[in-house]
Parts: sequence; C-alpha cells; structure tokens
Amino acid sequence: MELSRAGLEMARLSGLRGIMEDIALATGAAPGRAWRNLGVGNPAAIPEVCGWWQRLATEALTGSFADTSCRYGPSRGLPRLVDAIVGYFNRRYGWTIGPRNVVVGPGSQMLCFMAAAMFTGPGAARDTELVLPMTPDYTGYQGLSMTAGGVRGVEPILRTEGERTFGYRIDLTAVSEQANAGMFLISTPSNPAGRRATPEELDGLLDIAEARDVPLMLDLAYGHPFPGIAEAPTAPIWHERVINSFSLSKTGLPGERLGFVIADERYVTPLVSFLANSALHAPQLAQATLARALEGDAIDAVVASVITPFYAERRKYMEELLVQALPCEVSWRLHRSEGGMFVWLWVDEDWFDDLELCRLLKERGVFVVPGRHFFTEPERGARLGRHPRQCVRISMTPDPADLTAGVERIAAALADMRDRAAGTTGNDN
Amino acid sequence: MELSRAGLEMARLSGLRGIMEDIALATGAAPGRAWRNLGVGNPAAIPEVCGWWQRLATEALTGSFADTSCRYGPSRGLPRLVDAIVGYFNRRYGWTIGPRNVVVGPGSQMLCFMAAAMFTGPGAARDTELVLPMTPDYTGYQGLSMTAGGVRGVEPILRTEGERTFGYRIDLTAVSEQANAGMFLISTPSNPAGRRATPEELDGLLDIAEARDVPLMLDLAYGHPFPGIAEAPTAPIWHERVINSFSLSKTGLPGERLGFVIADERYVTPLVSFLANSALHAPQLAQATLARALEGDAIDAVVASVITPFYAERRKYMEELLVQALPCEVSWRLHRSEGGMFVWLWVDEDWFDDLELCRLLKERGVFVVPGRHFFTEPERGARLGRHPRQCVRISMTPDPADLTAGVERIAAALADMRDRAAGTTGNDN
Repeated sequence: MELSRAGLEMARLSGLRGIMEDIALATGAAPGRAWRNLGVGNPAAIPEVCGWWQRLATEALTGSFADTSCRYGPSRGLPRLVDAIVGYFNRRYGWTIGPRNVVVGPGSQMLCFMAAAMFTGPGAARDTELVLPMTPDYTGYQGLSMTAGGVRGVEPILRTEGERTFGYRIDLTAVSEQANAGMFLISTPSNPAGRRATPEELDGLLDIAEARDVPLMLDLAYGHPFPGIAEAPTAPIWHERVINSFSLSKTGLPGERLGFVIADERYVTPLVSFLANSALHAPQLAQATLARALEGDAIDAVVASVITPFYAERRKYMEELLVQALPCEVSWRLHRSEGGMFVWLWVDEDWFDDLELCRLLKERGVFVVPGRHFFTEPERGARLGRHPRQCVRISMTPDPADLTAGVERIAAALADMRDRAAGTTGNDN
Repeated sequence: MELSRAGLEMARLSGLRGIMEDIALATGAAPGRAWRNLGVGNPAAIPEVCGWWQRLATEALTGSFADTSCRYGPSRGLPRLVDAIVGYFNRRYGWTIGPRNVVVGPGSQMLCFMAAAMFTGPGAARDTELVLPMTPDYTGYQGLSMTAGGVRGVEPILRTEGERTFGYRIDLTAVSEQANAGMFLISTPSNPAGRRATPEELDGLLDIAEARDVPLMLDLAYGHPFPGIAEAPTAPIWHERVINSFSLSKTGLPGERLGFVIADERYVTPLVSFLANSALHAPQLAQATLARALEGDAIDAVVASVITPFYAERRKYMEELLVQALPCEVSWRLHRSEGGMFVWLWVDEDWFDDLELCRLLKERGVFVVPGRHFFTEPERGARLGRHPRQCVRISMTPDPADLTAGVERIAAALADMRDRAAGTTGNDN
C-alpha cells in the first residue's frame, strides 16, 4: 500500500495527539486508578452551561428536527444560523457584514484545515507555508498541513517579570522575514500560554499580511464575544485580511464540532466551496441550537454571568495553589495570565526536562502536557535554547480536588528532580 | 490573493453543485412560485422514519448530553457507537471485525474525501488518480480530489433491453488498464442510474485492486444493511482491499452528516489520524443517536417495514407515470431499476440535449439534473458519444403531486423539443 504525500503527512499524529493517545491507553489499562488528568483540553464541566445548551438543543430538536436533521442544508450554513451570526455581530460590534461573510463548519479545526489547504502548500507560482507568528501555540496547528515541513513557527521574545512571572512577545521582525508565508494563524488568547496578542502586535501582523497579500487567521476559541475566557474583553477585528475563527467548543459544546468564520468574501467564498466538496455542510441540529443561542443575544448572559467569572476564579485558585505548593528554591515562573484554560509553567533550571517530569507524574497517576510540542520543528529552541523543553501545560478545568492533588504531585516530582540533580552534581564535583 | 494548487481545485464547484446553486437562486428569487424540484438529492420525507430518529435523538439528548455534547470524543468515534457498529455487523453478517476496523466520520462524503487525499494524488514514487470504475456515478466524487485531473472515470458498456429499458455494465478491461489508479470508488446501488454492481463485477474489481495494491471503496449510501433501497439485498463485502462506506443520509438523517467506514486496519488507521488532524471527530449527539439505532438491531425493522417498501412502491409509481406520460414516438429508455432514489432517463434522439431540456423545464417551474455531469471530463463521451448529453436524473423523493406535475412537464418539453427538431429538419430539406 502506498500513501500519497498528503496521506503520509496526515497519517502522522502530531506530538500532542500521541500523548493524548498515551493518556487514553494508560487510563484505559488501569481504569480503577484515580488518575488526575491535568492534560485535558476539555472545557470545565459547568452544570449551568451544559444545562443551558441542553435546553436549547431540546428546543431545536422539538422545533425543527424534520427541517434540519432530516434534510441536507446549504454548505455556508443553516440560513437561520447565518442570519443569527450576521445579526449578532452587527449588533454587538457595529459591523455591516452580510451572509456572504460567514461560513459555518464542522468545527473550527476543520475550518483551519481547509484554510491551510487553500492558502498554503504547493502553488502555481510558488510553494507557501502556514506560519504561526508566535510559538508556543496550539499543537493541533502542526497537523493542519498536508505538505512535509508545511508549518513554520516563529519563536517569541521572552521577558521575565517580577519573581514568578514571565511573558512572551511576538517577534514581528522575524515574522516579517517569513517570505514563504501563505497564511498566518494565531490563537488569541492562546493555547497553551493564555497570552493575548496586543493591538500593536495585531497591527504589525496585519501590515505584514497586507504586504504579502495573505490572510491572517485569528483563532478566537478562548476569546470574545464567547467564551470570553480572558482578563479583558477584546473585540474581534473586521479587516479585509483577517479570517476570524470562532468555536463553540470552549463555550461548552466541544462534542458537537461547530465553528464558523467571519471574513471578507475573497476568503469565505472559496471556503464554502471547499466545504461543499469535502464535507457538504456542518451538522444541523447543533447549528439550530447555536442560532437560538445567538438570537436575542442569549449567549451573552451565560458568558458574562457564568463562564467568564468561572475561569477568572479558577485561574486565581490555580495560581495560588502553585505558589503555595511548588518548591520556592526552584526557579519556576508562570506565563502572565491573560486568558484561556491553561497554566503555562516554565521551570528555568538546567536539570529540568518536560518529558521527564511527565514520565514521573504518570507514575504518580497525574497527566500534564510537555511543552516542547507547542513549538514547531525544526525551529524549536533556535532562539530560546532549552526553554521549549522547560515548560509544561497544566489544565485548569478538572475538579478542584484533582487540581489540588495534581499540583501537590507536580511539586513533589519537581523536588525529586531537583534533589536528583543536586546529587548528580555533588557526585560530579 | 493566491490559492494553492489544492485550493484552486477545491474552490471550484463541481458541475452538479453549480446547478444546485442555480436551483437555490431561482427558487429563492421566486419563492411564491410552485416549483417542482425533481432535482433534489434529499431522501423522501417519511414521517415514520423522521419521527423514529427524533425519538432516538431525544433519548440521546436526555440520556447523555453532558458526556457526549459537552466533551471532546475519540477520533475513531464514540466508543458506544463503535461497539454498536462492531456488534451489529458481526451479528448480521457473521464477520469478526473489531473496533480497529471502524472509523466514524462527519459524513461519508468527508470519509471519501479523506480516503481520496490519502490514497491518491502526488506520491513519493508516483502520482495516482481516483478512478471511478463506471460512470455515470455520483458527481460529488469529482469534487473529492485536490489535484487537477485527479479523478478519472471509465465509461460503461451500454446495452438496450426490450423496448424502454437499458443497462450499463462495468468495462473491466478498461478498468484494468488504469495504470495510475490509487483508489477505486463506486456507489452501489449507484447514484444516478440506480445500478447495482454484480458479484462478478465486484470480483473483477477486487482482482484489479489486489493486482495494483490499492483500495476499492464501496459507497453503500443506498445499499444494505441500511437504507436498503434496492431490489435485492446485497451484503457488504469484508475483504482486505475493500473500504466499505456507510451513510446515515438516505436512512433519514442527511442533515446530521454522519457516516462510517469498515475496512482493514491498514486503511482505517491512517483515516483515524487524518480525521484527528483535520476535524478531530464526528458530532457526538448524532453518534449517540445512531448507537441506539444499531443496538438490538432496531434499525432493521424500520428499514424492512418502512424504507425499503416505500422506495419500491415509489419506483413503480414513477415508472408507470413516465410510461403513461412520455411521448411514445420518442426513443426514450430508463435504466433497469435495481435501487437508489433516482430514475435515469435516456432520450436516444439526435435532437435531444440534457441542458436544453433542463432550461425548458426551468421555465416551466421544474428542475431535473442534466446527465452529463455524472460523467468525468475529459473521458466523457469517448466511448458513448452523445449518450452522456442524452440523459437526465429525476428524483423519486418529492411528493407524488410534484412528481405527477413534473413528469407531465417533462413530457410536454420533450414533445416541444421533438417538434422543433422536426420543424428544423423540415426547413432544411
């Protein structure tokens, strides 16, 4: 059997998915054990949110099953949903978009995949790459390209802040030098670091995208208007070069795979065709459910009164837990908290290795995600040296009991690693 | 803006989708008019079937919303559904498949797209094509390839039978000469002709697939075990070269985009990775619904008592309508009825042109689908001459009143075309 070049790429699981598989295997093999999975990407199970979606889905199921589930629909999206999206964003942000600026897809991951296939890769005139303007960024992006070496990340500028904090900045000069960029893609707030791109950075990226005549795709899965998991509200950007990607997953509906894009027609029209040719359209019961959430801005109340405060409190809780538990003589720092569902821990010690910590934690029944996979190869560490191997991603969404037990074990494993290193160093001296 | 090569292909709407767009525009522009749309691909609206799915979806929504809709799931499919598929097929066909032989996807179209991308196109050693062993076949296949000229169809052998019937046969010799085949793909029963591949033809295709070491994908969207829209039940084939593709669309749930594949691990494993990288997984409420339909073989009763008889009766009704209405002095024939949702009409007259008939019908408020789009370019007509332009696809799924009115207008348009041709011939003499 022979796989095509695209097949060879797509048959490969990205680093993180390999780890997720490993977690599934480990927990599956010992289901009785009390695993503390702080590696998950699921949103927190918030009963009010889940119950609210369930009510809306029930309404959709009762009210329009024959028309939505039992019939094919348009590839752009269920007209009622497309209209609801147009109305919602025009009301909320004073835009003047129309249905031709919208395409609904079977998850924002699929929308990113289609955009990457359309705007990057082998071309008539030249071959282009999917450029991530700042790594670390969502590891799933590394699985989007059907071309070997088709995804290139730009390492950030790193600054320490105070005693236990650090922050990344986009290296706009390095981004501007990406002559083969066919599209830029960035999550903001970001997975894993929870970083928000600043208005100045976005302006800089837009200038670069315009100069190169390529799109800038903003993955707003954690951003505003929903789920609004961010310290400060930031409006999406209406701009002829920007592809805004919105997801329902972190607002509570990850299992239904629903996302949508708002962009200039030049980008939306070919995406609608790609969708028609590949998947026909997104599932419609979920679309009918989302339409009900947007009509009358119902979703805003859930975000403002439940989701945003939940994650703000959860972040405070996690940061306090970590400060209390982690060994104070170890040089560790957290990325400045600006949003998202994760804590991004940097252990700035020569003896630290992300994979080794994950191995030790797995022995103790805890999962976290090694940091290196959020950086792309072969750029990884070119500017930052060992830093990509000194980070781990810790999810804030498990139950507090799991978070507490998990953080305790992270602290203990760190202490063990340090002691072992000290012992080794002692022997060496 | 520059599109990649893949983007250029995928931005193009296949011939049929262009027509569907035209239908949507025409009906949208004159919504008050009583359009008779005999061009649709929707399954018939059968209240018992829709109501049955609605009950199962309600059970799924009530019973497992938090676990399925509010959480990510495995890329292979919801474990409960994968187990249900394994159990159902092993019970029904005496197979011994396991979960590793199954992948659930967001529609069988998407599964076909992924398979085409994996197994055809530019390769390390050579470039391969998606080969359709017999055209006419589903026009959607022509939109599956991201490579220019990546889909090649083989024209059939045509035989007239009796006075008003004809049939196609697969030209196995021509198929065996397709040296660049990376995968074979065929619908059986077929869209548009309603033709069932014979056991001998399938054996022949398997021999060719084995000799070339490539998969044979069988699209069973109209076949058995469900929806069972066929004259005679035909079991799917368990064979190491066969990728069986099953769809929920014609069993009544097209709007939820759910399909699955059963095949050897060599094909399923890379498809699961492709799905993980591109779309993560299929929507889960629909998966939980289908699991309930397969558990205890509940779906079999609906198929046997409602769906199969409904379409058998509908086909009889349509064929009688056509025989009564179409001008008897015109040389027209129907493809031998073996299954599927369509009537495939061949007007074997020099003056006939499929696009012209469609234009005339549109003026009279009726839509049917021109036949030429079910044949691939540039092969179209190489063996069959004008035949691909002498066929139209007529859907059997609209209401009887629409079918009756539609067929009357088809008859009238045919008579007009013939009279016009006779007049022109008269002038020429």
